Amino acid sequence: MLSIPTLQHIYKSYADTQRFNQKPASLYEPINYLLGLGGKSMRPTLVLLAANLFSAQVEKALPQAYAIELFHNFSLMHDDIMDKSPLRRGQPTVHIRYDENTAILSGDAMLVYAFQYIAQTNADLLAPILQIFTHTAIGICEGQQLDMDMAAAPTATVDEYIAMIRLKTAVLLQASLEMGAIIGGADQSQAAILGSFGLNLGISFQIQDDYLDTFGQAAQVGKRIGGDILENKKTFLLLKALELANPEQKATLSRLLSTRPLNEIEEQEKITHVTALFQSLNIAQLTQDFAQHYYQLAVDDLQRLQLPPDKATYLLDFAHYLLNRQS
Amino acid sequence: MLSIPTLQHIYKSYADTQRFNQKPASLYEPINYLLGLGGKSMRPTLVLLAANLFSAQVEKALPQAYAIELFHNFSLMHDDIMDKSPLRRGQPTVHIRYDENTAILSGDAMLVYAFQYIAQTNADLLAPILQIFTHTAIGICEGQQLDMDMAAAPTATVDEYIAMIRLKTAVLLQASLEMGAIIGGADQSQAAILGSFGLNLGISFQIQDDYLDTFGQAAQVGKRIGGDILENKKTFLLLKALELANPEQKATLSRLLSTRPLNEIEEQEKITHVTALFQSLNIAQLTQDFAQHYYQLAVDDLQRLQLPPDKATYLLDFAHYLLNRQS
Repeated sequence: MLSIPTLQHIYKSYADTQRFNQKPASLYEPINYLLGLGGKSMRPTLVLLAANLFSAQVEKALPQAYAIELFHNFSLMHDDIMDKSPLRRGQPTVHIRYDENTAILSGDAMLVYAFQYIAQTNADLLAPILQIFTHTAIGICEGQQLDMDMAAAPTATVDEYIAMIRLKTAVLLQASLEMGAIIGGADQSQAAILGSFGLNLGISFQIQDDYLDTFGQAAQVGKRIGGDILENKKTFLLLKALELANPEQKATLSRLLSTRPLNEIEEQEKITHVTALFQSLNIAQLTQDFAQHYYQLAVDDLQRLQLPPDKATYLLDFAHYLLNRQS
Repeated sequence: MLSIPTLQHIYKSYADTQRFNQKPASLYEPINYLLGLGGKSMRPTLVLLAANLFSAQVEKALPQAYAIELFHNFSLMHDDIMDKSPLRRGQPTVHIRYDENTAILSGDAMLVYAFQYIAQTNADLLAPILQIFTHTAIGICEGQQLDMDMAAAPTATVDEYIAMIRLKTAVLLQASLEMGAIIGGADQSQAAILGSFGLNLGISFQIQDDYLDTFGQAAQVGKRIGGDILENKKTFLLLKALELANPEQKATLSRLLSTRPLNEIEEQEKITHVTALFQSLNIAQLTQDFAQHYYQLAVDDLQRLQLPPDKATYLLDFAHYLLNRQS
């Protein structure tokens, strides 16, 4: 097995040769801008990793890895318009740097190009790869819609939240591993189990993200602790708290949610009070347990795969690293 | 050969069974709304027509016909946001009826579904069909960008205009015929020539559209004559006039373009004066000649196809009908 940094390096070397230099520049420059903002390339690395489990020739999976990354960046470009996000990776989002029309159309082009890279798949594997990719892309559109619907709704349940993050986030990790495995020569059943591993890991990862936003250490998370609380974001933490709160606690929480802090002192107060209420409901522990539950499902998937021990250990280390990161 | 109305009927019967009833409704209802606004289904009919030239089983091409229609409607949904169009087929556009986020995301979903219908192609033809479809979709994104760039630019040339309408409009007719032919069993070369026929017909069709907007009969065109003039739209007519005008005529035209009519009388005045200037430059005739030139290229393509006489006549009648419509 190649190491993660080696896989990342192989991917980045390929991606660097795939710049969009076509005309009109007004369509393609924003694509290069967003792709150039960096990022960890986690998803394309997963594609290569999965291919490498079944084949030494990871290069075969590069077009599919790039398709996944293009799709991911298309969804960021459009989601940032819809969520009115000013920043992406610390830089102006495309609709701010250019304008909304540009972000719509350049995003559309990226989505089509993702399919063009999928089209580079060998004829014998094209049908299953295309099928996974379209199915996943539809799921992600549904996930973004569920996210927006949930943000606008007065309330939501933990189950609805899990259904949303499953589609919005986890299915792309699932597809990355499943597609990579198929390109590497895995049979459909192995590929599906590896995909399930990715799905469960993705859900675990997102729950852990929610945890860190409230209970992480600012220095390690790299952003302000409590951002989700200030936004009244319907995270696992908040929805679980609303589920468990007694009438009195629910009233306190509702009151806290309705406050609009006017300065940093009031913001810190809101964060402190909501966090204290979470603590009184044991939310930190319950969240960790829930993330651990999905992590365990991922580990169970690995066992079903019956990989040689060195490969199983490799994947387990990787999963462990993802779940136990502090940032 | 099946008649055009029969092909349309076969297509519409199929399309009626393909409603989007999935969840979340907030994502899928706007898709059904736009698809339900009607339209002549010209593009999917062309797919079936092309298939029918080479096969009696036109039903084989229904998923690809539907993919083309989904793609076309995706592009309408997003273009209407970008162009800030309030109406589509006489009804509120999706971003007006719902909101912009909805029009962005439901449009994205339609685009992905277009690929899902493409994915229904038999494995032996999937690669060439997917290749044509992605190539065409990229061209159409580029065409929309060229259109927006041209609208924002102080001036443009006839050549730039043709390059734009080629991508924005004509390549989808090309792809419709080319894909239908391949599904029907045509070889790559026949399919490419039939595609070229569609491309040339599409350009001719668009030039004719420009002609009718200024020189058509209101009752037959079904919309107000002179709309393009009031919008200062960079049509073939205006760009050709700017190309041919002497300095004095150019000054008159510039002055007319800079007027902003305040009432219907002033609007009619602007239309009358611009039309008169076009007439003095022989623009009506030159536009007809230009449309005729592309029509002739389409006819030449037909001859290269060496179809049986009845099929050639069928296509020729169809082309003639398209070009000579008064509306």
